[in-house]
Amino acid sequence: MASREKSSEARAAGSGEEIEVRGHIVDSLLLPKILDRILQMGGTFEIRECRIGVQRSDPSYARIGIRADTPEAVAEIIGDLVEHGASPVHPEDVRTVPADVAAAFPENFYSTTNQRTQVRVKGRWIDVEDQEMDCGVALDAAAGRARCIPMVHVELGMPIVVGHAGVRVLPEERSRETSLFGFMSSNVSSEKPKAVSLQGVADSIRATRADGKKVLLVGGPAIVHTGSAPHVARLIREGWIQTLFAGNALATHDIEQSLYGTSLGVSIAKGEAIEHGHEHHLRAINAIRRLGGIRAAVDQGVVTSGIMYECVKQGVDFVLAGSIRDDGPLPDVVTDVLVAQDRMRASVRDVGFALCIATALHSIATGNLLPAWVKVVCVDINPATVTKLADRGSFQTIGIVTDVEPFLRSLAAELTAGGAETGPGA
Amino acid sequence: MASREKSSEARAAGSGEEIEVRGHIVDSLLLPKILDRILQMGGTFEIRECRIGVQRSDPSYARIGIRADTPEAVAEIIGDLVEHGASPVHPEDVRTVPADVAAAFPENFYSTTNQRTQVRVKGRWIDVEDQEMDCGVALDAAAGRARCIPMVHVELGMPIVVGHAGVRVLPEERSRETSLFGFMSSNVSSEKPKAVSLQGVADSIRATRADGKKVLLVGGPAIVHTGSAPHVARLIREGWIQTLFAGNALATHDIEQSLYGTSLGVSIAKGEAIEHGHEHHLRAINAIRRLGGIRAAVDQGVVTSGIMYECVKQGVDFVLAGSIRDDGPLPDVVTDVLVAQDRMRASVRDVGFALCIATALHSIATGNLLPAWVKVVCVDINPATVTKLADRGSFQTIGIVTDVEPFLRSLAAELTAGGAETGPGA
Amino acid sequence: MASREKSSEARAAGSGEEIEVRGHIVDSLLLPKILDRILQMGGTFEIRECRIGVQRSDPSYARIGIRADTPEAVAEIIGDLVEHGASPVHPEDVRTVPADVAAAFPENFYSTTNQRTQVRVKGRWIDVEDQEMDCGVALDAAAGRARCIPMVHVELGMPIVVGHAGVRVLPEERSRETSLFGFMSSNVSSEKPKAVSLQGVADSIRATRADGKKVLLVGGPAIVHTGSAPHVARLIREGWIQTLFAGNALATHDIEQSLYGTSLGVSIAKGEAIEHGHEHHLRAINAIRRLGGIRAAVDQGVVTSGIMYECVKQGVDFVLAGSIRDDGPLPDVVTDVLVAQDRMRASVRDVGFALCIATALHSIATGNLLPAWVKVVCVDINPATVTKLADRGSFQTIGIVTDVEPFLRSLAAELTAGGAETGPGA
Amino acid sequence: MASREKSSEARAAGSGEEIEVRGHIVDSLLLPKILDRILQMGGTFEIRECRIGVQRSDPSYARIGIRADTPEAVAEIIGDLVEHGASPVHPEDVRTVPADVAAAFPENFYSTTNQRTQVRVKGRWIDVEDQEMDCGVALDAAAGRARCIPMVHVELGMPIVVGHAGVRVLPEERSRETSLFGFMSSNVSSEKPKAVSLQGVADSIRATRADGKKVLLVGGPAIVHTGSAPHVARLIREGWIQTLFAGNALATHDIEQSLYGTSLGVSIAKGEAIEHGHEHHLRAINAIRRLGGIRAAVDQGVVTSGIMYECVKQGVDFVLAGSIRDDGPLPDVVTDVLVAQDRMRASVRDVGFALCIATALHSIATGNLLPAWVKVVCVDINPATVTKLADRGSFQTIGIVTDVEPFLRSLAAELTAGGAETGPGA
Repeated sequence: MASREKSSEARAAGSGEEIEVRGHIVDSLLLPKILDRILQMGGTFEIRECRIGVQRSDPSYARIGIRADTPEAVAEIIGDLVEHGASPVHPEDVRTVPADVAAAFPENFYSTTNQRTQVRVKGRWIDVEDQEMDCGVALDAAAGRARCIPMVHVELGMPIVVGHAGVRVLPEERSRETSLFGFMSSNVSSEKPKAVSLQGVADSIRATRADGKKVLLVGGPAIVHTGSAPHVARLIREGWIQTLFAGNALATHDIEQSLYGTSLGVSIAKGEAIEHGHEHHLRAINAIRRLGGIRAAVDQGVVTSGIMYECVKQGVDFVLAGSIRDDGPLPDVVTDVLVAQDRMRASVRDVGFALCIATALHSIATGNLLPAWVKVVCVDINPATVTKLADRGSFQTIGIVTDVEPFLRSLAAELTAGGAETGPGA
Repeated sequence: MASREKSSEARAAGSGEEIEVRGHIVDSLLLPKILDRILQMGGTFEIRECRIGVQRSDPSYARIGIRADTPEAVAEIIGDLVEHGASPVHPEDVRTVPADVAAAFPENFYSTTNQRTQVRVKGRWIDVEDQEMDCGVALDAAAGRARCIPMVHVELGMPIVVGHAGVRVLPEERSRETSLFGFMSSNVSSEKPKAVSLQGVADSIRATRADGKKVLLVGGPAIVHTGSAPHVARLIREGWIQTLFAGNALATHDIEQSLYGTSLGVSIAKGEAIEHGHEHHLRAINAIRRLGGIRAAVDQGVVTSGIMYECVKQGVDFVLAGSIRDDGPLPDVVTDVLVAQDRMRASVRDVGFALCIATALHSIATGNLLPAWVKVVCVDINPATVTKLADRGSFQTIGIVTDVEPFLRSLAAELTAGGAETGPGA
Repeated sequence: MASREKSSEARAAGSGEEIEVRGHIVDSLLLPKILDRILQMGGTFEIRECRIGVQRSDPSYARIGIRADTPEAVAEIIGDLVEHGASPVHPEDVRTVPADVAAAFPENFYSTTNQRTQVRVKGRWIDVEDQEMDCGVALDAAAGRARCIPMVHVELGMPIVVGHAGVRVLPEERSRETSLFGFMSSNVSSEKPKAVSLQGVADSIRATRADGKKVLLVGGPAIVHTGSAPHVARLIREGWIQTLFAGNALATHDIEQSLYGTSLGVSIAKGEAIEHGHEHHLRAINAIRRLGGIRAAVDQGVVTSGIMYECVKQGVDFVLAGSIRDDGPLPDVVTDVLVAQDRMRASVRDVGFALCIATALHSIATGNLLPAWVKVVCVDINPATVTKLADRGSFQTIGIVTDVEPFLRSLAAELTAGGAETGPGA
Repeated sequence: MASREKSSEARAAGSGEEIEVRGHIVDSLLLPKILDRILQMGGTFEIRECRIGVQRSDPSYARIGIRADTPEAVAEIIGDLVEHGASPVHPEDVRTVPADVAAAFPENFYSTTNQRTQVRVKGRWIDVEDQEMDCGVALDAAAGRARCIPMVHVELGMPIVVGHAGVRVLPEERSRETSLFGFMSSNVSSEKPKAVSLQGVADSIRATRADGKKVLLVGGPAIVHTGSAPHVARLIREGWIQTLFAGNALATHDIEQSLYGTSLGVSIAKGEAIEHGHEHHLRAINAIRRLGGIRAAVDQGVVTSGIMYECVKQGVDFVLAGSIRDDGPLPDVVTDVLVAQDRMRASVRDVGFALCIATALHSIATGNLLPAWVKVVCVDINPATVTKLADRGSFQTIGIVTDVEPFLRSLAAELTAGGAETGPGA
C-alpha cells in the first residue's frame, strides 16, 4: 500500500524525533492522552523508555519516538504534544518573525494555551508573562522577556514566536490531595450533596483573601431577579469581593431595584409579577444617564443600596461590558468589546479565585482571559451552562448546578456570620 | 359550497341547542375559552344574552346559541363545554347503561375530569364522589349516589353514565385574592424571588394542618443524593407530613445511607464520589429482604435514622410503588402498578396539600388521582419537569424551579424552628 | 381605614377618566387582560357599556370607568392600558418636552412598545415611524412626523413625547384563521409534529419573498458545528435569504471549515472530535485579518465555499456583531455594540420574516429591534432558549424545539427542490 | 500517628496481596484507573513490574502490590479491582454458600456487573451465563455451569457465589479502530455533525441483522406525538426491528392515532392542538379492552395501521411494561413490574443492538438487563436524558441529542430506500 511505503520513507526521515514526559504521567492520564493524540494525528509511536514510579509520590518518566508520513506531520504532532506538557528530547531556541501585518500574527505563529509556558532564549528557559489562551507570544530578546499578546495588539515589526521549537508548556497537575473540591470536579450534576459544595467555595474565598489575592465575581442579571442582590451587596460590603465583571443588565436591574423597588409597589419582597417592569428598567437607565453615571448617582444620594452602590462605596473594580442586546445602556458600560476585553484583562491580573454566577457570556469571556492556575467556580441552575463552562478547562473550572439565591444566601451567611474576627481584614 | 349548504340545514336542526355560563366569566377567561372551543370544534356561536358584572365582585352571565353541521357535532361540542363549566339551558336527567364487558366501560361512556362534578338524577343534582380524572361514573340510583370508577374496576352490569346529558362540572375558579401563591402560578421560571415561594409553601402546609387535612410528600431519590434526607426526616418527626408516595429508589438510598453511610467512609457528609455505591444499594435492599421489610428493620434496630425510619416511627402512611427500573426491590414495594394505584387512591382521600419533590413519574401518577381542589406544589431543579407537571392542572399545580436541598433545608427550618408551640399538634 | 378614605376622595377626583376598547376584545382576551391590569395596579373598574359581537366576525366594544387613590395612579393605569390598545374616551394632543440632556430622555418620557403606535398632533392621529420597543418618540411638529428614537441618539433640544396623553397603540390581533402556524403559537414543546412546523416556515418564507420583503437569518455557530453550513449556503445561493445577523463565531467557524475542512483531515464530513480545533479557529481569523476582510478573502479566491462566501457572492447584507467572548475577531466584526445595533436597525427596515437559529444573544438583540408585525420563528434544540424568545412577543415569535441540522436540511430541500420554477425569482 | 502504625502492621499482614492487569492498560486508561481506585479506597500501591507495549498493538502488563490497614480493607480493594479487570496473582476457586432466605442473597454475595465474568471451579475458569448487572451468581457445580440470578429468583438452598475470590471480569476494551462511532462516544452534545451519527446507527443496524442478531427498539410516546409513528412502522414492516419495549403510553397513542386520527379531525397531519385528546386516549384504551387486546383488534380489522399493527403483523416480540402513571391500561400491558422485567430479560437474549428513543424509564430498565457487549444508542432531544443513560456504561451507550422525528424519518429513508435488495432478508 502506498501509504505504508511513504510511511517507511518517513520512518528514516523522522527517526530523530523524540519527546519525553515526566511527572505523574500515568495517574494524571498524561501518558495515555499523549499516545492517543499521536495516533489520532496519524502518527505511530514507540515507547523507548518508561519508568513508572513505584510509589504514588514517585514521578514517572517516558521517552517516546514519534513517526509520521512527512516531517511536517511529525512537526505538527510535536507541536500538539508540547501543549500537553511533552518536551522534545533535543530542544532548540525559540524562533521569531517580525509581524508583517499590523493587528495580525505572522504565518505559522505559536498559538498559546492558558497553561504556564516557557520559551527558550539563548539556551535558557524564560517564563511567558501575562499568560492567556489564544494569543501569540511577543519576544523582547534584548530584555530577555516574553509575553502573551492578543492578535489585535500586534504592531508592525514586533518579533512574534513561530513554530513550536523552543516552547514548552508546564500543565497544571490535578491535585492529589482529597480536598473538598475533589469530588466536585468529577462531573456536573444537580444530584450532589449541596452543603459540601458551599463549604468548598467559602473555604476557597477565605484562602484567596488570606493569600492576598483578589476574588472576582462574574454575575448575570438572575442574581437580581432571584432576590440575591442583598446577599452579594453584603459580601462586597464585608470585603469578600474585589472585582466585578458584569453587563448592563445586572447593573440596571440592581439600580432599578434600588430606585423603584419600593415606591411602585412592585417589589422583590412581594414577588409579584412585574408586567410593566421593562419600562422601569429603561427609566432606571435614563435616570443614570441624566446624572452622568453610577458613581455620580451614588454620590448624589440617588442610588442608596444594592450591588453597584456597594461597589462604589467599597472601591470594587468593576467592568460592565456591552452586548448587542443591551437597552440604553448605562453610561458606565464599555460598548466596544475590544476595549472591554482590555479592561477585563487588566483587572484579572491579581485575581486568585473567580466565582461565576448565572451568566454564560461573561463567564466564557472571563475564562478566555484567565490563566489555568486560577480556580473558577461556576454556579447556575441550568446544567447545560455549567457543563459548557466546566468543559473548557480540565481541572480549573468546577461547576455547581444549584439555585442561585439559596447558594448566595448561604455563602453570605457563611462568610459574614462571625463578624470582624472572621472578616477578610482591612 | 357543499359544507355551507350542510351548515344551513344543520342550522335548522340544531337551533334549539343553547348553553349558559355564569360567574366571573370574563376575567377568569372562561367566556373567551368557550367561544374559542366552539370555533375550534367546527361550530358557530351567537351570543344571545350577555350581562357583564359592573364591579369586580358582580358575577356575569352569558347565554350562547351553538350550531354545527350535524346534531352529533353539536352534541360533541356541548359535551366539551360542559367540562369547562357551561350548562345546557334545558337540562335532562343523566343516562346510564349497564356495563357489557367487565373492566371496560360501555360505548359512549362519560369520561371524568378532576373538577367537582354533579349528575342529575330524577331532576335533582347530586355530587359525584371520589372525584378523579379519566374515570367513568357509576350510578347507584336506588341510593341516590354516584362515584368515579376506574376502568379496571368496572363490573358486569354496573350502571355507567353515558353521554353528557345530565352532567355538570363546577370548575375551580382562580382565586381572586392577591396571595403569596398568586405570583407563582403565572409561569414557571428559575428567575423568580425564591424566599417568597418558600414562605408560600410553609404557609400552605400550616394551613392544611390547621384545617385537619393531611400533607402528602411525593419524593424522588434526588432527595437523598442531594443530602436532603435529614430535612425530610425532621419534617416527618415534627408532624408536618402524614403521607409519603415514593418508589424503591428513594427508600433504598435512604436506607443505604442509614446502613452504610458512615462505616464505608463514603458519606453524604464528605460528598465524595461513590463509585461503588451501586453495590451498596443492592446490599441495602438485600439486607432488608433478609429481615422481611422496612418495619422489621426498624423494629430490630437495624435501620435507626432517615426518612423511612421516621415514617415507621411516626406512623406515616407510605406507598412505595414499583417501576420496571427497580433493583431488588425492597419487600415493601408494591410491584403491581394497578395495586399501587389503588393504594395511592385510598391514601389521597384526606390529603389537603401535596408537595412533589424531584420526581416526574410519581408526581404525574399522583396528579392523575387528585381532585382539582387539592393544591399541589412541584419542586424540581429541571424546568422541563416543573412545566410538564404544572401544565396539567391550570390553577392546581404550582411549579418552583429550585434546588431541592436548600429548599428542603429552609422549609424544615421554617416549620420546625419554634419547637412545640408552632408544631402542628395532635 | 385611611386608604379607603383616600379612595373615596380619589373617586370624585378621578371620576372623569374613562377608556374604551374595540375589536375582538373577548376572544382575543383583551378585555379580561385590561380588567386584570386595572386591579393589579391598584385601581377599580366599572363597565359602563359593553356590546359583545353576536357573531364571531362582529366587533365588540366596551367603555370602562377607572378609579384609583390619586390622579397620578389613574394616569399610570391609563398609560399602561394604552399600551394594550385601550384609548381614553376624551383624547388630547400629544405633549413634548425638549431634551435637556444629550443622549438621554427628559423626565416622564413615553417609552415605546413594538406595536403600531400613533400620536395625536393638532387633533389628527399620525403614525410613529421606525417602530421599535424601548425607545422614545421624537416629534417634528412642523413636518407632521414622529419617529422612534433610541436613548443614545437623543440630541439636546429635540422635542420628545412625554406622558401617555395623545398616544395610542394598535396592537396586532391574533390571527383568526386556522393556519399552519396556529398550532405552534400555543406553546413550546419538543413533542409536536415536526413536519408541520417545517412546512409553515417554508410557506412563510415563500410568502415573504412573493410579497417583495426580505428574509432575515439570525444564526449561531451551532449551524456550522452540526454540519448545517451547506444547507444555509444553498438557501442563500438560491435567493431565499437577504440579510444575515450573526457574530464572530459563526463567520469564523464557517470560514475555518472552508479553509481547513479537508486539508487537515478534521472534517465535518467524518465527524471526528476536533481537539485542536480551537487553534484552527484562531488561524482562520488571523488569515482573514492578514487579507483585510472576508470580501477580500473571497475575491482573492482564498475562501471558496460556505455561508460567508455565498453572502459575498449573492450580495447578502450581513452584520457581524461583536461580543466580549470573541477571539480575534474577524476584521468584519463591528466591535462597538451601539454601532452594531445601528447597523442592524438599518438592515431590518424591509425585513418581512426573521428566522433565528441556535442563538439566544443575537435573537434577543434582533427581537429588540423588530416591530411586532414581523413574524419571527426561533429554532433551537434547547427549549429554554425557545421559551425565552417566544415569551417576549405574544403572537410575533413562534418557537420550534428541534435539532438544527435536520431542520435546515429539510428546509433547504423544500425551498430549493423544484429548481427554477419554484425559485424566489430574480 | 496511629494510622501509620496500623498501616505498617497491615503492610506485613497484607504483603502477599498482589494483582496483575494485562492488555492495552495504558491507552485504555485501565492502569491509571486502577491506581486511582486503590488510593481512593484508602490503600497504597507499589508497581512491582510494568512492561509497556512498544507499539500500539503490543499488549502491556503490570503487577501491582496492594496494601491497606486491615486484611478486610485489602480484600475490599481487590474485590473492587476485579470488577475493573484486574486479577489476583494467585487465584483461588470460587466460594459459594447456600441461600438461607428465599428471594434474597446470602451475606457477602458477589454482586455482578454487566461485563463478561468468569468463575473458577476446580481450577478451571467457566463463563457466567445470562450476564446481567446487579445480580448474584448461582453455581451448578455438578454441571459445571454458573449464571446470573436476580435477587427475587433466589430459592432456598441455591448455591450462591460469595466474596471475590475465584471471580474474574473481562471488561470490554474500547475499540481501537477509528469508526463512525468513535467520535460520538466522546461526549454528549447537540452541537455535533448529525449526518454522521445517523449513518453510524444505520450501519450498526445493518451489521446486527447481517450477524443474525435482533434489533431492539425501546420507545417512548414522543415517537407518536412528534409524528414519527409511520417511520417506525415502516422500519418494522421492512424487517429492521425484531423486539419492542415500551409502555402503555406509546401503544395507546399509536392506537389512538390509528382509530381516531382522521375521523375526529384532530390529526398529526394538521398538527392542531389536541385539547380534548386525553379523552380520545381513554376511549382508545377502552375500545381495545372491549375487544380483548391488541392482537384481537388487529385481527378484527379495527386497528389497521401504526406501530402496534406492524408488530402484530410482522411477529415482533413486544413487551409493554406497566407504570403507576398509566391510564387504563391496555390489556396487553404487564402490570406487575417484576413479571415485566422477566419478560424483558427473556427477550433481550439475542439482541445485538438496542435503539432507545425518547424514554428514560424504559431505557434505564433495558440498560439494567443488557450485557456490556450489546451496543446501545440513546436518542433524545433532552441532553440530560442522554447524559443520564450514557453515563451508565462507559463504551456501551452512545448518546445522540437530536430531534426524534427527523432522526427516525432519515433512518427509515436510509434503511428502507433501496427496497428488497438492501432489505435485511428473511
